[in-house]
Amino acid sequence: MALFGGIEAGGTKFVCAVGTGPDDVRAVTRFPTTTPAETIGRVIEFFRSQPEPMTAIGIGAFGPTDPDPASPTYGTITSTPKPGWQNTPLRKLVADALGVPVAFDTDVNAAALGEYTWGAARGIDTFIYLTVGTGIGGGAMVEGRMLHGLVHPEMGHIRVPHDWAVDPFPGFCPYHGDCLEGLAAGPALERRWGTRAETLPPDHPAWPLEAEYLAQALVSYILILSPKRIVIGGGVMHQPALFPLVRTRVKELLAGYVQSPAILEGIDTYIVPPALGDRAGVLGAIALAQGQR
Amino acid sequence: MALFGGIEAGGTKFVCAVGTGPDDVRAVTRFPTTTPAETIGRVIEFFRSQPEPMTAIGIGAFGPTDPDPASPTYGTITSTPKPGWQNTPLRKLVADALGVPVAFDTDVNAAALGEYTWGAARGIDTFIYLTVGTGIGGGAMVEGRMLHGLVHPEMGHIRVPHDWAVDPFPGFCPYHGDCLEGLAAGPALERRWGTRAETLPPDHPAWPLEAEYLAQALVSYILILSPKRIVIGGGVMHQPALFPLVRTRVKELLAGYVQSPAILEGIDTYIVPPALGDRAGVLGAIALAQGQR
Repeated sequence: MALFGGIEAGGTKFVCAVGTGPDDVRAVTRFPTTTPAETIGRVIEFFRSQPEPMTAIGIGAFGPTDPDPASPTYGTITSTPKPGWQNTPLRKLVADALGVPVAFDTDVNAAALGEYTWGAARGIDTFIYLTVGTGIGGGAMVEGRMLHGLVHPEMGHIRVPHDWAVDPFPGFCPYHGDCLEGLAAGPALERRWGTRAETLPPDHPAWPLEAEYLAQALVSYILILSPKRIVIGGGVMHQPALFPLVRTRVKELLAGYVQSPAILEGIDTYIVPPALGDRAGVLGAIALAQGQR
Repeated sequence: MALFGGIEAGGTKFVCAVGTGPDDVRAVTRFPTTTPAETIGRVIEFFRSQPEPMTAIGIGAFGPTDPDPASPTYGTITSTPKPGWQNTPLRKLVADALGVPVAFDTDVNAAALGEYTWGAARGIDTFIYLTVGTGIGGGAMVEGRMLHGLVHPEMGHIRVPHDWAVDPFPGFCPYHGDCLEGLAAGPALERRWGTRAETLPPDHPAWPLEAEYLAQALVSYILILSPKRIVIGGGVMHQPALFPLVRTRVKELLAGYVQSPAILEGIDTYIVPPALGDRAGVLGAIALAQGQR
């Protein structure tokens, strides 16, 4: 019987799992992302130690990456600012060591695929998966296919209106300063308010401001990509006050322009958390492995 | 031998053509968009007067529309602000009168399909076609399929940074004020500078400002949709100074973040005018008809 491996290769931590889906996860491990040699060494050790061999493995990786199967550098982490990881051929190193087929995509595309296969986007052919955590990134399925395009989307780096009088925080993105990620990812909250996002109470002014930035971005996503649903995961979204604030503001900003019942009447099921929770990434990597079998 | 009809149904004028492609256009007519009854009457009269019957007809229409073939209102112009045109079943009226299959999509998706079939996007599976004229709209092909999603994109209505000190013009979009269309479509130039866009000389300050707004929007499109090329048509783009200004500013704004040779080294072939010129729309409608044959 076929058995699959999933690797959620994050910039902060790696998660590896073995199984066939959310109800059949046979082993899982987590460890911090250190050097490529040490980190990939632990990945290989984990899969070698399993009682049964993998049929295939999937990797959802932090980036920027090269996710094009036709490219000679397919599965490489390319121009990341993360020290030591530039031009790391992650997919090739895993495939060569374990001798099995390895599929590769961005971390957010993998999570999107997980939610499409088993989660909040089942049966929906055009949707976005956004994660709001240490960084902000988005994956998308469009008309039934994972979106890659020229390289892959970098939805977290779009510009959103920034009223300096209301929010003097300059943003922390090393490339763009006050892009969405620079203003609204976890580290932005921590630096702006002087405390970690998870310690901010639900009635703190941090949350309406966070909702404003996220809603402005979602409106751009909706107008450009016309998704049928938006799934938002990541640590910052663990604050329960945030989803209602974002939904309300998206409707206000669209001002009735997109005349779809999904938005006008069904916003609570249009902007949703991931059904797989924080397992979306690693389960999506397993789904990726299954697709390439 | 199969013969096709194309209808570019614009908010200002309709263009109808008969043929099989850009080198075989056998008849063409243009007339202003007046009432639905009069305008659609002229469409039907034109096709009835042809010596040969059409095998199929394609319509690329102004909107918002319902372009979903599975919907009971497929091919209807829905919530347009254009007087008299709300909920006009354009596709059905043409199909019933002429008794041939009629395919329907947005005007910008039709133009995109034209450029994909015969023009500047041949062989490119993920790209955007943008028109900058009386309004601003975008169509897209993603991984080989026309993007529709929830309804269809409304890329012209995204928000772009608006520095009121530099540009006190408030925008003219009735829904959003200073969205991209409100700041950068033809009527915005006319109202801001007091003269029609085509009369503004190439060294007029109108053009760097126009390039700034368009470049800001293109950067959002690139980060969200990752197109392999962007084709920009429409009357405002007839100013030759505009393309170089837009290309330069897009590279500056991306700041090297999207590390693709297509952008870093090939921006002149990445952001391009339509190869079919102002015929992209009506030829795209013929391509639409051929796809549905």
